[in-house]
Amino acid sequence: MKAVAKLQRGPGAELIDAPEPAVGPRDVLIRVKATSICGTDVHIYEWDPWSAGRIKPPIIFGHELGGVVEDVGPEVTCVRRGDLVSVETHIVCGTCYQCQMGEAHVCDRVSILGIDRDGAFAELVAVPEANVWVNPPSLSAEVAAIQEPLGNAVHSVLAGAVAGCRVAVLGCGPIGLWSVAVSRAAGATAIYAVEPSGYRRELAARMGATRVMDPRDTDVVSRIREFTQGVGADVVLEMSGNATAIGDGFRIARNGGRVSLLGLPPRPVELDLSNDIVLRGLTVQGIAGRQMYATWVQTSNLVNSGLVDPATAITHRFPLEDFREAFAVVKGGACGKVVLNP
Amino acid sequence: MKAVAKLQRGPGAELIDAPEPAVGPRDVLIRVKATSICGTDVHIYEWDPWSAGRIKPPIIFGHELGGVVEDVGPEVTCVRRGDLVSVETHIVCGTCYQCQMGEAHVCDRVSILGIDRDGAFAELVAVPEANVWVNPPSLSAEVAAIQEPLGNAVHSVLAGAVAGCRVAVLGCGPIGLWSVAVSRAAGATAIYAVEPSGYRRELAARMGATRVMDPRDTDVVSRIREFTQGVGADVVLEMSGNATAIGDGFRIARNGGRVSLLGLPPRPVELDLSNDIVLRGLTVQGIAGRQMYATWVQTSNLVNSGLVDPATAITHRFPLEDFREAFAVVKGGACGKVVLNP
Amino acid sequence: MKAVAKLQRGPGAELIDAPEPAVGPRDVLIRVKATSICGTDVHIYEWDPWSAGRIKPPIIFGHELGGVVEDVGPEVTCVRRGDLVSVETHIVCGTCYQCQMGEAHVCDRVSILGIDRDGAFAELVAVPEANVWVNPPSLSAEVAAIQEPLGNAVHSVLAGAVAGCRVAVLGCGPIGLWSVAVSRAAGATAIYAVEPSGYRRELAARMGATRVMDPRDTDVVSRIREFTQGVGADVVLEMSGNATAIGDGFRIARNGGRVSLLGLPPRPVELDLSNDIVLRGLTVQGIAGRQMYATWVQTSNLVNSGLVDPATAITHRFPLEDFREAFAVVKGGACGKVVLNP
Amino acid sequence: MKAVAKLQRGPGAELIDAPEPAVGPRDVLIRVKATSICGTDVHIYEWDPWSAGRIKPPIIFGHELGGVVEDVGPEVTCVRRGDLVSVETHIVCGTCYQCQMGEAHVCDRVSILGIDRDGAFAELVAVPEANVWVNPPSLSAEVAAIQEPLGNAVHSVLAGAVAGCRVAVLGCGPIGLWSVAVSRAAGATAIYAVEPSGYRRELAARMGATRVMDPRDTDVVSRIREFTQGVGADVVLEMSGNATAIGDGFRIARNGGRVSLLGLPPRPVELDLSNDIVLRGLTVQGIAGRQMYATWVQTSNLVNSGLVDPATAITHRFPLEDFREAFAVVKGGACGKVVLNP
Repeated sequence: MKAVAKLQRGPGAELIDAPEPAVGPRDVLIRVKATSICGTDVHIYEWDPWSAGRIKPPIIFGHELGGVVEDVGPEVTCVRRGDLVSVETHIVCGTCYQCQMGEAHVCDRVSILGIDRDGAFAELVAVPEANVWVNPPSLSAEVAAIQEPLGNAVHSVLAGAVAGCRVAVLGCGPIGLWSVAVSRAAGATAIYAVEPSGYRRELAARMGATRVMDPRDTDVVSRIREFTQGVGADVVLEMSGNATAIGDGFRIARNGGRVSLLGLPPRPVELDLSNDIVLRGLTVQGIAGRQMYATWVQTSNLVNSGLVDPATAITHRFPLEDFREAFAVVKGGACGKVVLNP
Repeated sequence: MKAVAKLQRGPGAELIDAPEPAVGPRDVLIRVKATSICGTDVHIYEWDPWSAGRIKPPIIFGHELGGVVEDVGPEVTCVRRGDLVSVETHIVCGTCYQCQMGEAHVCDRVSILGIDRDGAFAELVAVPEANVWVNPPSLSAEVAAIQEPLGNAVHSVLAGAVAGCRVAVLGCGPIGLWSVAVSRAAGATAIYAVEPSGYRRELAARMGATRVMDPRDTDVVSRIREFTQGVGADVVLEMSGNATAIGDGFRIARNGGRVSLLGLPPRPVELDLSNDIVLRGLTVQGIAGRQMYATWVQTSNLVNSGLVDPATAITHRFPLEDFREAFAVVKGGACGKVVLNP
Repeated sequence: MKAVAKLQRGPGAELIDAPEPAVGPRDVLIRVKATSICGTDVHIYEWDPWSAGRIKPPIIFGHELGGVVEDVGPEVTCVRRGDLVSVETHIVCGTCYQCQMGEAHVCDRVSILGIDRDGAFAELVAVPEANVWVNPPSLSAEVAAIQEPLGNAVHSVLAGAVAGCRVAVLGCGPIGLWSVAVSRAAGATAIYAVEPSGYRRELAARMGATRVMDPRDTDVVSRIREFTQGVGADVVLEMSGNATAIGDGFRIARNGGRVSLLGLPPRPVELDLSNDIVLRGLTVQGIAGRQMYATWVQTSNLVNSGLVDPATAITHRFPLEDFREAFAVVKGGACGKVVLNP
Repeated sequence: MKAVAKLQRGPGAELIDAPEPAVGPRDVLIRVKATSICGTDVHIYEWDPWSAGRIKPPIIFGHELGGVVEDVGPEVTCVRRGDLVSVETHIVCGTCYQCQMGEAHVCDRVSILGIDRDGAFAELVAVPEANVWVNPPSLSAEVAAIQEPLGNAVHSVLAGAVAGCRVAVLGCGPIGLWSVAVSRAAGATAIYAVEPSGYRRELAARMGATRVMDPRDTDVVSRIREFTQGVGADVVLEMSGNATAIGDGFRIARNGGRVSLLGLPPRPVELDLSNDIVLRGLTVQGIAGRQMYATWVQTSNLVNSGLVDPATAITHRFPLEDFREAFAVVKGGACGKVVLNP
């Protein structure tokens, strides 16, 4: 089968002809109809320090996918051939302390699709039944694919109160854009979207931001304090991983407010803990993955009810073969979500 | 000044010429521009057993009001003449166990406007500054008035998770109608409104219910289970006080779901606690008043942002003098909220 | 193997010679060292209406057990021969809405050991690996057995705030007794234990109750209000299933307090919802089973640290053959937990 | 009256003869029986950069106090002459967004006793009635005094789950020591206390720590992971303000765990947000002051029930006149809490 793989340590990737994946007794084989590019995939493609420490080529990467079930192992009970499915990409142990506590999304022994095992940039992929999410047949394959990163946004937004609250979203890549949409659907009464790319600011406005700001020409801390009568935002969703944005984020939050961190800064960040967090009584949350599977239930309900239309954030589509062009678009930043079709 | 008062123990009320209220050093005197009729006012008007045990005539009743500040006592610091205000009707002690715990809405020594002291069916009313909520001047006086019962709906809906959830609202009087609207604004993905009055079912649909049902000709438990693939509703908001609805409510809720009770049944209700609550792990909440003042902040944000338009539920307006006609309309049930203008 | 089984519809049970249980590929075969009698077992033994509707003889009943792993199926990965284990008795589907939401303890398709399939009153029992809890080898088998009902107490007590709170425990059967001990360990500053049996009141005092009361000669509502300066208890743990106790429970709770219901009343109960729950803003929780497996983690930590010594509640031990005598003791009520040794 | 005051900008303080404080209509005049030294008082005494930016001499400093009510203003309603009282030192506005939300401990316009207005290092102090906490007359004045900083510990420990949890306390100054004691009372099953001073480690052990460690000769991250079978601590209470301890704290916490920050680092701290917080799904809480007044209720219940004995941490007592010697002891670090008696 056709697949995009990292064959050796270093930048780049190759289109290969790979053998079909083996299907274990509790596995589901999926024919990939749409797969989308995550920031993590860009790190792997470019072979950044994190990738160099984690990825062991040869590996087919990619982990966001929507597809149709082609086959199931003999012990699979709930998934059927022909089902339109999405995939939770964290394959968890089920027995560590966190798994026992109902916090499998921070499992101590997680294995991730397309990072620790062959992934979704391929015509076929095999995953454990437990990780398969069955969608209504009317859903499009590309929305099925993006439910996984949309779930990150849902997890972030719903990690605390949001209805009746004023929310700041820092960074409007795809997860930031969906955070705007989910905040809107969940009753945020003002949504301040901060993003340097004009292309993405426009998308943010279309997805429900009440104010969009360019942090390069706006003092966002002052502006948001002004919009909130000096109070600050009840909720700050940090989606950029940018050190300046993170520092601003704590100062944008009102006393007693919530700052949910999803963006991954590549280096340590210096924080004024005393004045920005302790004395102001903030709550700071690290947001990892999706709650398994409460976030999927919420995401699915929001999408299938039409309250959130995540497809608005899909701006580019390429055949899988044109993956180099697709990665170039993602790196350029003038895009929302980029989809590959195998 | 003109006022509607209960002058003696028994049904009915009188339009009287009352002296202007005294204004204490920390009090605010409000010229009432709009006041609305609560179910409690109907109980007082009709002199039901509860009223007979609680109300001590003579008293001006009514407690939902929007008005303009006419005067302030010498120790008032934050409210000014000319402010357009609403009023939290629970005047609390500030020192009991619940007040200390931040749960003043269930204060042990609460005194309620229009029940324990002269109220809002008048041209002027005096209340402590602590109970005055200042609105933007652009708000209409009648929306200012209904923010108080709207707050009951906000308190009910936001007493637990609602975004991404399926919600059933039992009883679509004004607070039920607003519960529909607030659930919608807060991200409920389906809202099942149950109400015998066709007039109110139509209002419920206009305010965002995804399904409306007449419990007299529908087996609502079965129907809602059907709509939810046999699961049941995540959240049940009981707004009717009707014993049959309450019993149904527990069976409509999914295992592990939430049932928030605001409606006040006039008599004890028989419940199958074992099968309907204990074994299914439900959480049942008594909803009293509004959190002071977190609910007001949320309500105000939802109204002023335009996410919730509570005026849709106002269906009738009368001059204060025509209070008898207004009460007749409320009792007839073919109405939403009924407003009186002094 | 030796086992106690219900062979036909009707009261009583028989000691039988049963075949050893089959061990599926993901099952664990356990040699039972201690098994204890639950109130549910008494219902089955006596063939009450609930049993008649649920139990399908022939069946080996009993579900609380501690034992040593005798054998494991070929796909078992984490449990080993010789492990000293306890068993979570709710065998859940893993795929229903509640299981997806992380609320498997209220799974829609639960199958219960000793109720829906052969159970623990036997020399050997087979259960899925997922339901096996491995203990440190130093734990006694009988404490291993009672961790399951102790978990009900842990689930009840820790279902809300308890440190710094005043707690009332209504009914001091084994789960009530452990609720006293867990409340004490978790920082309850006063524990009012209400129980008609003098034998059990004495046990309650030994396990940490600060006051014990006989509801037959004490007005418990007044007394507890007196002990709490008129406020009421922050937390009420209803462990009796008695209708009078339940009604009292709501009136013992302070405004805004929590009432956790675990006891199972055999018939519907009449409640004054308006005055006892709604207007006072109570939170009422149905407590079903144990959170899977957060409650087991907490229980295990509490037991193995020595903070809770559940063995104090074990008052009688019998060989399995003497089960009739054991049931008679349980029914007599002058006992704590009764253990059977196969 | 006798008082210790900062008379000019710079290090040091003076014993002065000050006029008795004025008592406003809603104020309470307290005769100070015991006052204790907070780390903040040391900063003011030494005139660190924070003090130089905040303190406006002349001012009587000190804010932790127990005393007897000497007089009350004419509008005081609940406090009486002769009451033994403690004082909440945050005097809040009551009207800002946070105050409205029930989060007065992070009031936007807080004024702090002994920092922004004359404080407790004196024979008499006047405070608003709302800030006075009445104790049972049997309490000692010095325990009344230390309930204020004890409240910080209670706020920290009870800011999330602790019963059945393993807790690490970093830094065993007085608030750290009390955090050990409160964690113990609230059901922590293991308490790892980290502190360089041997004197304080011994106190920590006496107050309930199950392990004490010197971070100068122990790799505390490894050791605590070892004690917890590689999992990490469920809860980390950071009481030191030391940058190394803070960094360790995040690595001591288990995936999904809680880190509550109370210690105030004097400078910005560099954090590996991606690996230490985001990807591991931590919750980080800034702990400011005490919840008003839920924390006081909890603290009072814990102290008056005898579950927490905070006096164990009092190691030194001086007459107010010997304040220089007292400050020297505090700075030396071989002490727990140091009390001054006016």
